[in-house]
Amino acid sequence: MKDLESLSASQAIRALARRDIKATDLLLACLDRIGQRESLVKAWVSLGKENALARAKELDKGAIKGILHGLPIGVKDLFDTYDLPTGYGSPIYANHYPLADAVSVALMRQAGGIILGKTVSTEFATFKAPVTVNPHHHKHTPGGSSSGSAAAVADFMVPLATGSQTAGSIIRPASYCGVVGFKPSYGKVMTAGIKALSPALDTMGCFGRSVGDVALGVAAMSDDLGLAEIPELHNKPRIAICKTNDWSLASKETAGAIALARFTAEAIAKGTVSDIELPSACNELTLTQSRIMSYEMARTLSFEQKLFGKKISSVLSQQLVEGSKINYEQYQMDMHYAKAARFAIDQLFQNEVDIMIAPSATGEAPSAKDGTGNPVFCRGWTLLGLPCINLNISSGPNGLPIGVQLIAGPGKDHFLLSAARAFAQALPDPVLRDQA
Amino acid sequence: MKDLESLSASQAIRALARRDIKATDLLLACLDRIGQRESLVKAWVSLGKENALARAKELDKGAIKGILHGLPIGVKDLFDTYDLPTGYGSPIYANHYPLADAVSVALMRQAGGIILGKTVSTEFATFKAPVTVNPHHHKHTPGGSSSGSAAAVADFMVPLATGSQTAGSIIRPASYCGVVGFKPSYGKVMTAGIKALSPALDTMGCFGRSVGDVALGVAAMSDDLGLAEIPELHNKPRIAICKTNDWSLASKETAGAIALARFTAEAIAKGTVSDIELPSACNELTLTQSRIMSYEMARTLSFEQKLFGKKISSVLSQQLVEGSKINYEQYQMDMHYAKAARFAIDQLFQNEVDIMIAPSATGEAPSAKDGTGNPVFCRGWTLLGLPCINLNISSGPNGLPIGVQLIAGPGKDHFLLSAARAFAQALPDPVLRDQA
Repeated sequence: MKDLESLSASQAIRALARRDIKATDLLLACLDRIGQRESLVKAWVSLGKENALARAKELDKGAIKGILHGLPIGVKDLFDTYDLPTGYGSPIYANHYPLADAVSVALMRQAGGIILGKTVSTEFATFKAPVTVNPHHHKHTPGGSSSGSAAAVADFMVPLATGSQTAGSIIRPASYCGVVGFKPSYGKVMTAGIKALSPALDTMGCFGRSVGDVALGVAAMSDDLGLAEIPELHNKPRIAICKTNDWSLASKETAGAIALARFTAEAIAKGTVSDIELPSACNELTLTQSRIMSYEMARTLSFEQKLFGKKISSVLSQQLVEGSKINYEQYQMDMHYAKAARFAIDQLFQNEVDIMIAPSATGEAPSAKDGTGNPVFCRGWTLLGLPCINLNISSGPNGLPIGVQLIAGPGKDHFLLSAARAFAQALPDPVLRDQA
Repeated sequence: MKDLESLSASQAIRALARRDIKATDLLLACLDRIGQRESLVKAWVSLGKENALARAKELDKGAIKGILHGLPIGVKDLFDTYDLPTGYGSPIYANHYPLADAVSVALMRQAGGIILGKTVSTEFATFKAPVTVNPHHHKHTPGGSSSGSAAAVADFMVPLATGSQTAGSIIRPASYCGVVGFKPSYGKVMTAGIKALSPALDTMGCFGRSVGDVALGVAAMSDDLGLAEIPELHNKPRIAICKTNDWSLASKETAGAIALARFTAEAIAKGTVSDIELPSACNELTLTQSRIMSYEMARTLSFEQKLFGKKISSVLSQQLVEGSKINYEQYQMDMHYAKAARFAIDQLFQNEVDIMIAPSATGEAPSAKDGTGNPVFCRGWTLLGLPCINLNISSGPNGLPIGVQLIAGPGKDHFLLSAARAFAQALPDPVLRDQA
């Protein structure tokens, strides 16, 4: 048995269920790793060591509680937890103890998960650079806003961690940190108990080190327990590369990653892997997503802006001012646009394609001083509400990970997991095949 | 000028904007009325008298802040307020002070509204009978779950109060208490900061004593400020009576109210007021709504059930147990059913009808010992996400109010307000015409 902290969530769950390993030992191994690395990586806002150990001991003694039995989990500090402070990445909420868990956190505990601590979120899940560094190179960003979760999983501090995506806050940090990130269909995981940023877009998901890991995580978070079982692909899917309308922003390494993804996909696809263009109803996706997010943020954070304006960063303050200038009529037009775009993409998935492959980010993780990176390659998919998975596929000029995202039709989360596993199994690099 | 507490929200707003009356005096008149009546009606959980008075004085001195400038407002105790305890109708949350306002509350304050206090909600907005009584007869229920808000507005304690509807929690108490209740389109008002019950259904709205009042309320809550201006109807709408599949549950007085509504509608409708049946895709609306609500409640309240089970009423506990038995596959089927039903109703509104008129409740307010009444005539419309307004139209055997609801197509909130005003103006009883 390798070091416990390097087990993937799926491996750990199997070993825990067979009682081959103890939840307590796994937890201690994670805490040990955190002890060694946290001063550099800065992935955690708080750790609930004692509660977690008590819970692990209880789980070691009792019957198997559920699909996450005994698994240590990092929770993005945007999710309410009743036993750990919940700061939403903002000094306004320093030392805030919510009275209840977010619904998805309660469901993970119900499935036997052990909440080990809270991971760093950017300020209200927006764009200000966090303290967390990329564990592969401490001068680079882990991405945001789910910075701590992506870094903690990448650095073997914890096998599973939750995230949320409003623009590109799961897929982008997963790509930058070289882990598997799963943003399920919009609405799949209930958002109650998570600090709202842009309710039309906010989508909860998770990070793991394999497709099986993120399936477990979202299965528990959504209480769709069947999602944890990933069936083999029965039929070869129609796969297409979608470079999107923002392809001019892709770096050489991203272009290389897409080329490698095409090659990999050929092995599992029905026919050749074609290029696909989004329907014209999707031409303004990125702009529309940005404007809806901007409009809604200015409303969801209006309380904080009014009462605690001085504790909001200048960059966010400015965004809130801009968002407050967008009027309801524009917002309604944008929401109608989104509805029409979703209808068009639904048709596309029904008629032409089963899985699209697209860039996860413009390139490898930028230097930390340049912020958390550009979410442009995620904005449209988030607005469309489609399930997306990032898989690590290659690396960039600084040796940092590069991912691609696989995207399925609306509600096809289960199928996406099957396809992502098959894709990972077909990767040329045997180490990367562990992501299956 | 009549007594200030009997001004409707719209009347008060006009007088405040002209500085004919002071916000302070209006507030004091409301407090006075509450002082006289609260020991009987029991509409309030808490009053923020000092903060409200301070705010009123500030508003009397300064420039006009917005569309609710100086208006005292009751907030259902399901909505977070940073300066008033927020109990969600449950002893679990006794003395809970959230750190932030619900988004809709923050937006009402931003528009110049004065939060006067929190009104009684049933336990987590479910069905256990509350302490509040029907102000028209203290042995009868005001309905639920927005019990305190409906009763406070009906009893002239406050001109405007917020509500939420998951099954029938705005329209039903509005009918029982004889006030105007507005449940706008699903999603119109952001739910962030409101205790989630069933996120697929939870819809925020308000109570007033006229169509103009509820337009003001939802305009501020949604930040769709244009909604406060209600244009005259340019064209006669196609109006139809929809008795729904649950018509067998309608009492004689409800049948009488529908007959009177038909007669009234004839005056403003294009052609005759026909009867309309819902498309067959809507046959199972009531059952589907109940099951989705039951499924989701069992998840949203799982934290409370696990940690504070003894503080949950036995009736709710039982419902949570039942809901937890419904599996994800059933829930997904129900959500697909709802989507198909919404599509069918959208077609119906496009092709055949502009406004439907339907019962608001099975009859007048039942005896308080029999609970909060049956929401059956609201469940389907809530699931469909359609905007609905209750107007008081007649009375039952105990002399208690009976309302009907007017329903428009998805997103047609503005048009619904215009139609509801025209309908109210056409009512035979001149007193009831004040609802316009």
